[in-house]
Amino acid sequence: MANILRINMSDLSVKSEEVGEAYQGLGGRGLTSAVVSKEVEPTCSPIGPNNKLVFAPGLLGGTNCANSGRISVGGKSPLTGGIKEANSGGQAGGYLARLGIGALIVEGMAEEGKLYKLFISKDKCELSPADELKGLGNYETVEKLKGQFSEKAGYVSIGQAGEWKLVSATVAFTDRELRPTRHAGRGGLGAVMGSKGLKAIIVDPSGGEQAPLANKDAFKDAAKEFAKALSEHPVTSEGLPTYGTDVLINIINEAGGLPTRNFSEGRFEGADKVAGEALNEITVKRNGNPTHGCMSGCIIRCSGIFLDEKGEYVSKWPEYETVWAWGPNCGIDDLDAIARIDRVCDDVGVDTIEIGNSVAVAMEGGVKAVGGAAGAGELIAEVAKGTPLGRILGSGAEVVGKAFGVRRVPVVKGQALPAYDPRAVKGIGVTYATSPMGADHTAGYAVAQNIIKVGGDVDPLAPEGQAALSAELQIATALIDTAGLCLFVAFPMLDIPEAFNAVVDMINAKYGLSLTGDDAGALGKRVLEMERDFNVRAGFNKAADRLPEFFKLEKLPPHNQVYDVTDEDLDSVYA
Amino acid sequence: MANILRINMSDLSVKSEEVGEAYQGLGGRGLTSAVVSKEVEPTCSPIGPNNKLVFAPGLLGGTNCANSGRISVGGKSPLTGGIKEANSGGQAGGYLARLGIGALIVEGMAEEGKLYKLFISKDKCELSPADELKGLGNYETVEKLKGQFSEKAGYVSIGQAGEWKLVSATVAFTDRELRPTRHAGRGGLGAVMGSKGLKAIIVDPSGGEQAPLANKDAFKDAAKEFAKALSEHPVTSEGLPTYGTDVLINIINEAGGLPTRNFSEGRFEGADKVAGEALNEITVKRNGNPTHGCMSGCIIRCSGIFLDEKGEYVSKWPEYETVWAWGPNCGIDDLDAIARIDRVCDDVGVDTIEIGNSVAVAMEGGVKAVGGAAGAGELIAEVAKGTPLGRILGSGAEVVGKAFGVRRVPVVKGQALPAYDPRAVKGIGVTYATSPMGADHTAGYAVAQNIIKVGGDVDPLAPEGQAALSAELQIATALIDTAGLCLFVAFPMLDIPEAFNAVVDMINAKYGLSLTGDDAGALGKRVLEMERDFNVRAGFNKAADRLPEFFKLEKLPPHNQVYDVTDEDLDSVYA
Repeated sequence: MANILRINMSDLSVKSEEVGEAYQGLGGRGLTSAVVSKEVEPTCSPIGPNNKLVFAPGLLGGTNCANSGRISVGGKSPLTGGIKEANSGGQAGGYLARLGIGALIVEGMAEEGKLYKLFISKDKCELSPADELKGLGNYETVEKLKGQFSEKAGYVSIGQAGEWKLVSATVAFTDRELRPTRHAGRGGLGAVMGSKGLKAIIVDPSGGEQAPLANKDAFKDAAKEFAKALSEHPVTSEGLPTYGTDVLINIINEAGGLPTRNFSEGRFEGADKVAGEALNEITVKRNGNPTHGCMSGCIIRCSGIFLDEKGEYVSKWPEYETVWAWGPNCGIDDLDAIARIDRVCDDVGVDTIEIGNSVAVAMEGGVKAVGGAAGAGELIAEVAKGTPLGRILGSGAEVVGKAFGVRRVPVVKGQALPAYDPRAVKGIGVTYATSPMGADHTAGYAVAQNIIKVGGDVDPLAPEGQAALSAELQIATALIDTAGLCLFVAFPMLDIPEAFNAVVDMINAKYGLSLTGDDAGALGKRVLEMERDFNVRAGFNKAADRLPEFFKLEKLPPHNQVYDVTDEDLDSVYA
Repeated sequence: MANILRINMSDLSVKSEEVGEAYQGLGGRGLTSAVVSKEVEPTCSPIGPNNKLVFAPGLLGGTNCANSGRISVGGKSPLTGGIKEANSGGQAGGYLARLGIGALIVEGMAEEGKLYKLFISKDKCELSPADELKGLGNYETVEKLKGQFSEKAGYVSIGQAGEWKLVSATVAFTDRELRPTRHAGRGGLGAVMGSKGLKAIIVDPSGGEQAPLANKDAFKDAAKEFAKALSEHPVTSEGLPTYGTDVLINIINEAGGLPTRNFSEGRFEGADKVAGEALNEITVKRNGNPTHGCMSGCIIRCSGIFLDEKGEYVSKWPEYETVWAWGPNCGIDDLDAIARIDRVCDDVGVDTIEIGNSVAVAMEGGVKAVGGAAGAGELIAEVAKGTPLGRILGSGAEVVGKAFGVRRVPVVKGQALPAYDPRAVKGIGVTYATSPMGADHTAGYAVAQNIIKVGGDVDPLAPEGQAALSAELQIATALIDTAGLCLFVAFPMLDIPEAFNAVVDMINAKYGLSLTGDDAGALGKRVLEMERDFNVRAGFNKAADRLPEFFKLEKLPPHNQVYDVTDEDLDSVYA
């Protein structure tokens, strides 16, 4: 196994250690959650000296397995108060793995007001002052660091939101063009990084090499099989590369599950203006790049580059969740406005899902007119400036609800809901309610079986069967996140048995193991159990595994459904 | 038993009903908690249609028992998310009891934007529009209502904070001079009232009569015995009448447990300037009234009237908790400034403890200079205006910590700590941690045995014995709150066995019962069990019964103690 680097921000020491028994056989989310679960006191302050911020490439990181370069970031969440893993694309995951680093564990806390950067290369790992970066956004931070370090490095940073320790703050990762467009977005881990006084990490991969393989030939065969499945499945070979994740706008709108104007309707009249089809069209028209990978080794390439009317770079393609959060959920149908907001969010370093929900709730509270793109732009500017109103928004949808007396606040465990209304996609509602992460679509993407009909067909409007579906998906997802794979590989893995087997075969071939498919499932389950256990010790019980009341009270048009998966079913997920 | 009035704000109906089996033998907190526990879904939105706001005089309300006129207000707390009872002095409790009303249960929710007032008299109970009161503070609200209703009525109201549904909003009750100076302060019950569209309640006692007594002579004897104890015990006959609750400043400062500058020290260099002795002196000098009762039937009279230098009324005497929250805890030593702030808090209708903590945390976050009375005045003005900064402060200390990235936030279950540092008064720390109410000194006032040496002598700095002490006090307090007695009767009750027996005798004599002292204890225990059960169903487990981490990490001068009551001890309180 690769080594663990411990970065102590209290005494500014850096230590390398071998992976201990407790962490053997783990990577990615499995490793970050194991470290947090074992080493962090669950009732500690998430922005205090006793929280830890853990970065870990996945079990398949550093190999030439397609789409294996994700990086997991873990800690106690300032947003939910529970355990958190958020993962990201970009370059740093693969680079760390190639340097033989299994995890970075950032501990302690720098002296108040001090800011540092961490440089990691084949031969060196050192902290140095980063006063020159104070108060900078992610774009400018990376720009300055590029001048000091290699153009070949991967950059990890926080924007102003992380320095301010806002619970919506992200950790940003540069993509292949050295833009800080990929984010470990959810749960405020950027605030944890900020609280420790760590502004940036520079990962210089020079001299690194592919991860060693116990059985090269077996690995090669399995990797080929896996890549084949990705390039054959319609979702990963057609839908995503052409329209990006934003392909979902029309699909979810058609299904009546596109949360509109703060989860008050399931269809948005302006959906076609912000859908992936429109995003592709506008991009081609402006001579942009509609098919782009966010990290090396990606063969899905669902990303794109968004240009303005003059052909100038604005942002990467805003993801479906971002388009939804600032579009339909705020009643806005203007892709240019959304892309500009996306750019600000990436720069300041805030989670677009959380802040988009903040704005939708604030609009319901009368702070700005619903549907006004200009008003939304003013609000994100407040966040960027750190005004009191910006601080409210940056503190997440739950706090916005408190500040402006809004009752309809779509959060679970304090974390705002993503872009699928649980009343029209009931399986994802189970995941929102029961995931140890708070409301998180990536923790068990039942939209696949409910709507896209990948991996099965479960009626999205029926309450029955959703709990079992979500339970199974949450386990599979924990495994995928532990392997360091992009979640979108789940589509072929759910439909093509060889793709699932290939993942297990690659893990075996890399580490010289002989795991079965069942063993792999058990690994996913073990990760979830550690996470749930942490949350119990942090103060949650099963009554925290519920959707907000209004989903049970208000019927969602057009299907006019309430959320009716029973509490007993919800409790069965982790029974 | 008296009747229950149900006020349904959704259909604007008023119904009177007899007290059902489940609520027999309960009053005050026992009754409000029973109703909330039985009728409110614990995961509901606290500012939604399914929460209920319950008002109940105590078991001894409406009698001539001394200090028996308290009123309990209950509901699901918007601040903690758990059950809440906050009680208050003022006139309404006694008046409701004399009208034969055991409880008001306010249900449902008025149409968005509509505001109503509720008039209750011997013959009538009716809702009417209150548009003329929209946006008014409590003082102006009462002033307008006095013109419409009797000068003899008791007025219950919310200020702007309640209309805005801020989690620090109180329910205000008028005193004998028809000033809205008494508050059910903690946990944001004013927001519940605001969410229902109820601005005010007018209780006209005309034609009401003393509560019927099953055994008049026995009651008379016991009431006399009880009054004798109150008039003999030094705390209730000397300390409180002369210096008010603010008598505690010098005592707690001397004990090294007066939280100073956001709980960073245990002694305040300016304590003598804000102590009860100074309050008395300044009041006498300005020809004010230093000995005043907040409700009819009070023989302790710990209240007073605060005049400015010109002899004009500013506010009632700020309570110890208020003086502390805005004084030592913000580093401020100016009683005039504190009294002016107290007036604004009463008028806007916000909990002085919560908001004072908000300001102290904001000062630590750099929003204003620590110790600046002018800055504190500017901040309370922001609250009164409802600016974004005011909304942050009005959302309580926990939200302030989030908005400004402050780690040292003194809250339990989201509710800010009162005026005793748990590191120097370890028994009260157990109450803060384990009370179903969140951090609440009135839920089990171990300061009595730890510092004042009433009812026992338990070393305040030793971790041992505090859990058992708090457990016993929490039970006794639940009983006192159920009886509708002012908490200060606890001092004689703890020291003089006849006083305790007299309370049991009065309950027996009023209702024709034959409860023993043990039965009375069992009643207190039953109330707590209902409350704890509600909280479990709302999502809390025992890991929520903890003090914030910084109390365990940082030593408090001058005793240089951390909080070291073990988690096992904390868990033993409700084992």
